[in-house]
Amino acid sequence: MKTSVALHTYLQEQRARVEAALQNVFPVDWAIPERLREAMDYSLLAGGKRLRPILALAAAEAVTGKEETSDRALAFACAVEMIHTYSLVHDDLPAMDNDDYRRGRPTNHKVFGDAMAILAGDGLLTHAFHVASRATDDGVPAERALAVIRELSCYAGLPGMVGGQVSDMLGEQGITSLEQLEHIHLHKTSDLIAFSLRAGGHAAEADERQVEALGRFGRNIGLAFQIQDDILDLTGSADKLGKPVKSDERQHKVTYPYLLGLDESRRRVSELTREATDALLQVGLAKPERLLEIADYLLNRDH
Amino acid sequence: MKTSVALHTYLQEQRARVEAALQNVFPVDWAIPERLREAMDYSLLAGGKRLRPILALAAAEAVTGKEETSDRALAFACAVEMIHTYSLVHDDLPAMDNDDYRRGRPTNHKVFGDAMAILAGDGLLTHAFHVASRATDDGVPAERALAVIRELSCYAGLPGMVGGQVSDMLGEQGITSLEQLEHIHLHKTSDLIAFSLRAGGHAAEADERQVEALGRFGRNIGLAFQIQDDILDLTGSADKLGKPVKSDERQHKVTYPYLLGLDESRRRVSELTREATDALLQVGLAKPERLLEIADYLLNRDH
Repeated sequence: MKTSVALHTYLQEQRARVEAALQNVFPVDWAIPERLREAMDYSLLAGGKRLRPILALAAAEAVTGKEETSDRALAFACAVEMIHTYSLVHDDLPAMDNDDYRRGRPTNHKVFGDAMAILAGDGLLTHAFHVASRATDDGVPAERALAVIRELSCYAGLPGMVGGQVSDMLGEQGITSLEQLEHIHLHKTSDLIAFSLRAGGHAAEADERQVEALGRFGRNIGLAFQIQDDILDLTGSADKLGKPVKSDERQHKVTYPYLLGLDESRRRVSELTREATDALLQVGLAKPERLLEIADYLLNRDH
Repeated sequence: MKTSVALHTYLQEQRARVEAALQNVFPVDWAIPERLREAMDYSLLAGGKRLRPILALAAAEAVTGKEETSDRALAFACAVEMIHTYSLVHDDLPAMDNDDYRRGRPTNHKVFGDAMAILAGDGLLTHAFHVASRATDDGVPAERALAVIRELSCYAGLPGMVGGQVSDMLGEQGITSLEQLEHIHLHKTSDLIAFSLRAGGHAAEADERQVEALGRFGRNIGLAFQIQDDILDLTGSADKLGKPVKSDERQHKVTYPYLLGLDESRRRVSELTREATDALLQVGLAKPERLLEIADYLLNRDH
């Protein structure tokens, strides 16, 4: 299936909205060293799909069915993108994955040096919590903002993304089972996507069942997204992806296609997307269609 | 002046209380990779004065005059110590200060490797916000917890500690004025101490003037503390300090004694401590005495 014109327009518009908001996450009246601001902007404004923030906005709208509700999720949308960005900056460091390029550009530490990249990452991580705390300025009740901050500290933290990174690092030599691989992906990738959906739900003051369903949806499409990434690394075009293909193979990375084969990996993407869809349709969201369309798009993307 | 017996006992008791709380900041039912937990504990439970958390507890007690009020500040006390610890772990990295020893033990990355030290720092930083968000479990209203989280993200973040680290790094070759040095110390050290005091105030539901005064007190004793550190590096004993002396001189670091001389540096410590004291006495705190005693102790310490 091709992306529908309506969805394509929606994604473009929301992406532009997120870009504009990200350009203003650092208050102009704060005395931040210029070089630090440049280093953070270099990675934060480097483009990308903005999938996580868009999902947060779409989740808020899905709950009430009203577009304006998504305004209240914009702070959380920016926060999750800052967390995602810091994790990439730190991951690329020589002490970690030692990557020289990301999205077709030199990585942060190649431009700003290792020390600045560490501090830019620390700054983005810390400031993400600031931005999230500011959601009350957009009408989110303090209790909900606090709940979102608590969830962010989990999904991005020890039982979530940071823990997942460590598992990945420690397991690099020895992943042999699908369970191990799935555990790592769930925490490295899905957790932050699940968080995005839940945060959007909280912004719209969704009830607990709805927030849970949004989280399950995020968990499943997050995992599907990761498997799709593995598949695209094997089958995609370097031009469309903006990065070299078959790098996983060269680096002897254990991937879904490596463990399951391509066909079974594709089947797993479909299955996860169906499960994600089912979770959403049972909790009385006012307008779940957009989220379903996005899930469908993720399942069929070629970049 | 020697530390009074009462203050000595108080500091010992509060330190033990903080140590006990820090041993339980990682929920036992969370699936955290064991090696990550070890790396975080290695630095978090490495001793130290626990000055910042004790100040948070003392500030809460000062507001109401009741010892039990400080229970409500314990989450914030742990959070600030985790932030302080992560900053030391990242600072010590080869890409940053490249230090092999801290508090007489090998630094985190010497034991766990650079990648794990980066992730342990990220984990401690992220989890600090989790712990702070849990203050509501101890009776802190959600609005206050959110205010503290917002302040933590500033004092530890871009306009605070992280910004100060960057200024320090960029200025290492060229600090020539007292203003530059003070700017760096204010953000590298004082900000987190000011935060500790303010957080304690919020925990006790202090009014705005009281929170401000506690913050000013923290800012000033934080700066005095840093100048005292510089002085002790020149005049102290390696045994008492638990680290080599005159390392600043060997590293050609620009310090207060270097810029002002020893006598003028000591005078500045006294002056800052007096200003700190004055700020506290004008806002009707129920029992400011303990904080004043601690300030006096910091002014006269030899380690």
